[in-house]
Amino acid sequence: MRIYDIILKKRNGLENSRSEIEELVTGYVKGLVPDYQMAAWLMAVYFNHLSPEERSSLTDIMLNSGEKIDLSSIEGTKIDKHSTGGVGDKVTLIVGPVVASCGLVFAKLSGRGLGHTGGTIDKLESIPGFTTSLEVDRFKKQASKIGIALAGQTAEVAVADKKIYALRDVTATVEEISLIASSIMSKKLAIGSDGILLDVKTGKGAFMKNFKDARELALAMIDIGKRGGKKVGAVISDMDQPLGRMVGNSLEVIEAIETLKGNGPADLELLCRVISERMLIIGGVADENSAPDIVKDVIDSGKALAKFDEFVAAQGGPIDLSANYRKYLSPAGVIEEIKAERDGFVSGIDAEGVGLVCMRLGAGRKTKEDVIDPAVGVEVIKKIGDRVARGETLAVIHGNSRELVELERKVLMETFSFSTSEVLPPQIVHEVL
Amino acid sequence: MRIYDIILKKRNGLENSRSEIEELVTGYVKGLVPDYQMAAWLMAVYFNHLSPEERSSLTDIMLNSGEKIDLSSIEGTKIDKHSTGGVGDKVTLIVGPVVASCGLVFAKLSGRGLGHTGGTIDKLESIPGFTTSLEVDRFKKQASKIGIALAGQTAEVAVADKKIYALRDVTATVEEISLIASSIMSKKLAIGSDGILLDVKTGKGAFMKNFKDARELALAMIDIGKRGGKKVGAVISDMDQPLGRMVGNSLEVIEAIETLKGNGPADLELLCRVISERMLIIGGVADENSAPDIVKDVIDSGKALAKFDEFVAAQGGPIDLSANYRKYLSPAGVIEEIKAERDGFVSGIDAEGVGLVCMRLGAGRKTKEDVIDPAVGVEVIKKIGDRVARGETLAVIHGNSRELVELERKVLMETFSFSTSEVLPPQIVHEVL
Repeated sequence: MRIYDIILKKRNGLENSRSEIEELVTGYVKGLVPDYQMAAWLMAVYFNHLSPEERSSLTDIMLNSGEKIDLSSIEGTKIDKHSTGGVGDKVTLIVGPVVASCGLVFAKLSGRGLGHTGGTIDKLESIPGFTTSLEVDRFKKQASKIGIALAGQTAEVAVADKKIYALRDVTATVEEISLIASSIMSKKLAIGSDGILLDVKTGKGAFMKNFKDARELALAMIDIGKRGGKKVGAVISDMDQPLGRMVGNSLEVIEAIETLKGNGPADLELLCRVISERMLIIGGVADENSAPDIVKDVIDSGKALAKFDEFVAAQGGPIDLSANYRKYLSPAGVIEEIKAERDGFVSGIDAEGVGLVCMRLGAGRKTKEDVIDPAVGVEVIKKIGDRVARGETLAVIHGNSRELVELERKVLMETFSFSTSEVLPPQIVHEVL
Repeated sequence: MRIYDIILKKRNGLENSRSEIEELVTGYVKGLVPDYQMAAWLMAVYFNHLSPEERSSLTDIMLNSGEKIDLSSIEGTKIDKHSTGGVGDKVTLIVGPVVASCGLVFAKLSGRGLGHTGGTIDKLESIPGFTTSLEVDRFKKQASKIGIALAGQTAEVAVADKKIYALRDVTATVEEISLIASSIMSKKLAIGSDGILLDVKTGKGAFMKNFKDARELALAMIDIGKRGGKKVGAVISDMDQPLGRMVGNSLEVIEAIETLKGNGPADLELLCRVISERMLIIGGVADENSAPDIVKDVIDSGKALAKFDEFVAAQGGPIDLSANYRKYLSPAGVIEEIKAERDGFVSGIDAEGVGLVCMRLGAGRKTKEDVIDPAVGVEVIKKIGDRVARGETLAVIHGNSRELVELERKVLMETFSFSTSEVLPPQIVHEVL
């Protein structure tokens, strides 16, 4: 079929067959289909969307366009996790050790952060000695031996997705749910895990601003995953404010450790429990009834924390990190509080704004080349629903430049909004799918 | 504004400002805006359309991207005419002399035919000696002197439209009414006439298959023209079957002459009268009441026919063409009839099919390089609504290759459809706007 007719069908609201999508996408990767025809098709998809069959075909064709990571030599059930990205999202650092100590294998390839959201790799690299550059063999051996390994993504997975995403980025065709779902899942399915838990964030600090879109994205990804032969579940979680209290790399490692010790903030603690439970259920080592107790037990008993230490040590970090993190994770040089200017209730904390403050302090990257400062970030003391009295500390800003801190504390102040009447804190888990 | 944001606004259903459209279009012509961003914008326009302001801006920017033809040195009121294209459309050859003999100046630049529709230039070039390659000076002098001149389009008008049209053609974004209207009007407004009459065809043989779309296109073009300071009117006319009886270059010249003599087929004769009347009204030389009589008079008195002869002679053709056209326009070598196979009523004649038969016989071009055979074509004897008896002639095929004629007579037969019950002939003029 001519590429023109493939575009025409989509424009007219008809379905493209698998072979049509294949002709378009593989042609595009090979340079046989010009950018302008792919751009026209993507904009037609923006308006007419993809059917479940189409998005599954697109995902499969994109995943087959790049390298695949074969984890089959690792014994046990491999469970992956993906978050659509948020501010203060250190969930992977907590649920990884939890599920690994419950008998699942958590062998994850992870990305670096860009813009207002942080990356797990950056957080782990704030630990002295810790390496995320693992050779495939070492990665697999470690996962087999201790049930958990986490490395930076180096393989060229889903190259078609990379090329198409770059085009979407300049043609205003990023925000289409079937394209987002296919893009995420093409990369996830390239890694040979048995099951995937998707943490789809919703709210002002998330890519999906409203619940309806987040739910649609979650359902689309679940459907794609199931058609790809994987067990897939999803949790739709709140990102109207930062998750937990800490935002910034070593600050988040500390909060993850405290959560594994049972001292985590309520929202983070609850979300990690729910995600861990779903991973156990997907992995077949627990059911709805037994999962909560199993998760509670590995945390209360210290097994999950011990697994965290084992994991850190296996990748070159100090064996006693969780016991002595103050020794290894040096604090920032300039620490300032911001305080409430009047009595009231916190009614909002712009998560994206907090993320951008942290980025500018040095916790994240504006461009891929930026270097991370592990110590800097923001500690959110008061959260939505909290009553505050004039003069009480709202947040603590950790920086390494007095000038930057002075500049950013004003911005940070503006991320908070207040109400004179009582405000209900948001639910952290909106739905489990 | 970034091009990305211009696309985003259109995608989100907002209006682009004139300066945004200018940045996009002139950037595209200069090669600063890549094809893929223009393609994405065009597809967004396909779905979200252009507002009257937007399409007027787009037209104006496109018309300013190329040469403009200044007709101001020609005395009198210059009236242009545009047809959206049909099969057997020789209206220009008739209404040109009619309005010129009523005191208007008909100075028209015309195109060649491509595909199933013929071009006025090709029809005129079937006249021995007739030239359509007029230098601008000669063109203007002739128009001033005798009120009518018709030449091939050679100036590089609306170059942005040309570049954008080529992109629309390969990205399935041709069929959008505001883009079609802007494209046509950018070329029409580049020619400095005082008024324009638009003949918008509708039906199976037209670009606009249904009346609603044709009407919308007509209204869009009228609005653009008025915003451009021109007097504009439109006639929506039928193209469910070929117009008149003759399709093919010299055959259509003959039919035009016969119509100017008062012997034209009813549909063609009526359409030419209505179009001439509107042109006189737009040109300010008649009103609703006087126009019909003025048109009738110049035809009945032979003034319009004399103007036709004067026009032909001025451009190098024989002065006695209308009197002796059989001497100058030699017939095709192979002439075959197709006959009705049973009694009934003609219920349809696929105009596009007839146009394609003619094209393959040599009357038109598959590609721009094809050479035209002036003599070949089709004579449609029975039209929609006509009662036919078995064995009666439906159409006559004029070719110059026995093999081709044998092949095409079968195809031509299939362009006719029949009914056993009575069929009403279609109205030729659907609406005057």
